[in-house]
Amino acid sequence: MSTATPDAVVTAGTDLLADAVAGQAIPVTRVDWRPPMAGTADDLVTVATDPLRRAANERALAAMLGVTATLVDVAPAAEVLGLERGQFLHAGPPITWERASGPLRGALMGGAALEGLVDDPTDAPALFEAGTSVSLEPCHHRSAVGPMAGVVTPSMWMFVLEDPATGRRTHCSLNEGLGKVLRYGAYAPEVLDRLRWLRDVLGPLLRVAVRAVREHGSPVDVTAILTQMLQMGDEAHNRNRAGTLMLLRDLSPALVSGAATAGFPADDVAAALRFVGGNDHFFLNLAMPACKLALDAARGVEGSTMVVAMARNGTDFGIQVSGTGDEWFTGPAQLADGLFLGDYGPDDANPDIGDSAITETAGIGGFAMATAPAIVRLVGGTVPDALATTRRMREITLGTNPRWTVPVLEFAGVPSGIDVTKVCRTGVLPQINTGMAGRVAGVGQVGAGLVTPPAGIFPEALAGLAARTRSRA
Amino acid sequence: MSTATPDAVVTAGTDLLADAVAGQAIPVTRVDWRPPMAGTADDLVTVATDPLRRAANERALAAMLGVTATLVDVAPAAEVLGLERGQFLHAGPPITWERASGPLRGALMGGAALEGLVDDPTDAPALFEAGTSVSLEPCHHRSAVGPMAGVVTPSMWMFVLEDPATGRRTHCSLNEGLGKVLRYGAYAPEVLDRLRWLRDVLGPLLRVAVRAVREHGSPVDVTAILTQMLQMGDEAHNRNRAGTLMLLRDLSPALVSGAATAGFPADDVAAALRFVGGNDHFFLNLAMPACKLALDAARGVEGSTMVVAMARNGTDFGIQVSGTGDEWFTGPAQLADGLFLGDYGPDDANPDIGDSAITETAGIGGFAMATAPAIVRLVGGTVPDALATTRRMREITLGTNPRWTVPVLEFAGVPSGIDVTKVCRTGVLPQINTGMAGRVAGVGQVGAGLVTPPAGIFPEALAGLAARTRSRA
Repeated sequence: MSTATPDAVVTAGTDLLADAVAGQAIPVTRVDWRPPMAGTADDLVTVATDPLRRAANERALAAMLGVTATLVDVAPAAEVLGLERGQFLHAGPPITWERASGPLRGALMGGAALEGLVDDPTDAPALFEAGTSVSLEPCHHRSAVGPMAGVVTPSMWMFVLEDPATGRRTHCSLNEGLGKVLRYGAYAPEVLDRLRWLRDVLGPLLRVAVRAVREHGSPVDVTAILTQMLQMGDEAHNRNRAGTLMLLRDLSPALVSGAATAGFPADDVAAALRFVGGNDHFFLNLAMPACKLALDAARGVEGSTMVVAMARNGTDFGIQVSGTGDEWFTGPAQLADGLFLGDYGPDDANPDIGDSAITETAGIGGFAMATAPAIVRLVGGTVPDALATTRRMREITLGTNPRWTVPVLEFAGVPSGIDVTKVCRTGVLPQINTGMAGRVAGVGQVGAGLVTPPAGIFPEALAGLAARTRSRA
Repeated sequence: MSTATPDAVVTAGTDLLADAVAGQAIPVTRVDWRPPMAGTADDLVTVATDPLRRAANERALAAMLGVTATLVDVAPAAEVLGLERGQFLHAGPPITWERASGPLRGALMGGAALEGLVDDPTDAPALFEAGTSVSLEPCHHRSAVGPMAGVVTPSMWMFVLEDPATGRRTHCSLNEGLGKVLRYGAYAPEVLDRLRWLRDVLGPLLRVAVRAVREHGSPVDVTAILTQMLQMGDEAHNRNRAGTLMLLRDLSPALVSGAATAGFPADDVAAALRFVGGNDHFFLNLAMPACKLALDAARGVEGSTMVVAMARNGTDFGIQVSGTGDEWFTGPAQLADGLFLGDYGPDDANPDIGDSAITETAGIGGFAMATAPAIVRLVGGTVPDALATTRRMREITLGTNPRWTVPVLEFAGVPSGIDVTKVCRTGVLPQINTGMAGRVAGVGQVGAGLVTPPAGIFPEALAGLAARTRSRA
């Protein structure tokens, strides 16, 4: 070994060597390298050498990036999803009442009262325990997504999004605002009153406006609004301020004209504008189905290792992968690390819940935090963390989105298309930002923070991909 | 002289030494230092040793930062400014028709037609050449500001902003949108039609809404909207997207209710919402008077070297300084360097024009470009330039604004309170971003770009400050 001092050193992995070299005043370039996840070596080799993989991932990514989502209708779930009395949709992978967490139970109880299955939400548990007149099903199984508990009942009004190129559709309920709301597991009388107003006033008014702009040939372009949001400090998961305002801008003229023609009182129109304008998260329920619409186009590509859904039911975190069909790979939902409202603390929080991680699956939300540095005031962390997170997500994604760009990163596209093999090879987990529900049914929101999926579901998904690869060989 | 290699070198000033040292692989810290502006040495010493200066600047800065601006009314200039038939306000320091540039002349011609002083705008020059029935006066002399040509006539409706702590008020006209508009010097029939609609429909409707929210105890808080804008990618000079949307949010419910009560047709309300929502610059005409309201509070502090106005009339660039009363220090307005619309090029552009540099005077606009990196797509330059500009403006300002912060700079306040002595000592000029008017009357906008004041006005202002200091000694 030569004893000459090197001009510079490149180190990989842990910092031990790098620190020692730097201590000798030699320039060090640190390469962030970690060993693959334990037990994945054989499956990584199998999947990496799958002759279908490269083209399949290119096809899945291109399919996702090619979708545009327009808002084509607002209508009750009974009408657009065929949801029947006693049928409940919920966020995340499939689950039973017995395994459901507090906030999901609370939302189901409130939903049962909203539908008139019980007079008092606290009478509903018996109904769900018996399980004879009610049934649970994931939103994702019905072309829908739901934030937090994600409970959808037949009378709830849904946004209907469509990809004009294919006619495919996705759906999401109307956002209730913050605080004591059903999606966080609250079911107090004020929660149900608000849901009835959404059903009786806001939904019908929005339908008038959405149909009017659609008939005038200028339907709300949800994908274009998302593009603009990323230039305006929204990452479209926990910041949807600009998006909500652009939706108002696009709908309010037609809302005013259409409501007058249809005989709605001006005060109802004013109340609708006030409600939407007062709820910075209103657009989340359009961002989510737009992301699902894009990702649904990437489903079922044999050989693709791209994640097409990440979703949590408050107990389990599940992912679906393009190359493994509708199978869910699940593990325990984690507790978020973040900031708490009022006197709440970590002991009050339920594990991660909601279909809203569909935003991260599509490359925004936690993946686009660099474009929304102000979000650290809500979910914790620092501005450099937010910038680093977007850069780090490039390590586990198939590409970037040319439409959705981050100005401060010199207009780089958001990292898009989570690759199961890259996650397993690097150990870097997808970064999600999220609201936190109280773990006790009825409480509502207790905070917001940062969370990742349970690591083990990626090796499981990889094993599923490897098994299919081998069966094809 | 030792021949040992230094561990590191700190260089100041030009890059010659730094480059030579770096070429020998020695770490270099470059300190940006430039000699003071030529001929300012004596005045700098005089003003720097003025015993009043430090406290005066602290008082001026605190006065500016202490102001909040609320929108209290919308009303014709005749009513709120006492503007009479034949009186015209314009942007920038005082000027005569003879010295006026094309866009200012074009706007005056259109304004004369709007007021019925002539039937055809092209008949107006004779009126202004005679000068018997018409008069010109700066907006700034009437507690007003105007973007670009800044022409205000008696029938134009004005936003009225008030500082609730003192009752002081400032005013600005309603923004007409982009393209062929009066403020860029256009006066075609469509320009005048739009101005009549602003006068007959939009102004009266906005008054209903503004008065309603004010009477309900929640007047539009322009300062708070500016705070939010800076979290949403607006720098409030050439990006006012989020601000415009927040104004719509705050006014639209009262607009709908109030218009229905007052008997306005729903279609007029819809048209008003569509017009404002379709004009990303609408909020500029609230940002500007909010900045003037803040800066007016800092006027007339003996010994203060803080700039309280920067304004251009298309021929001259003028500044006013707190410690020198209402005196204007003027020099030739510069041509902006930027991006051009369509086939226009540098030869088509008029020198810098408008009162909108009041935003930079208050620490936003060009001073806050770091928070609005997407603006480089409009005004040119790169994202790193935008970040560097905000940092560089710290060298010539008295402090930062704790209310108006830049998330990506870890929530640092915008650089605020331009100090004439710091400008003279460093040679760093205030950075303004701006729209560019066509130099021929009637053309309209030709581009947008970056511009600075003529350097010579700062030594002139310094000389004025030094003379007062000496007269006090």
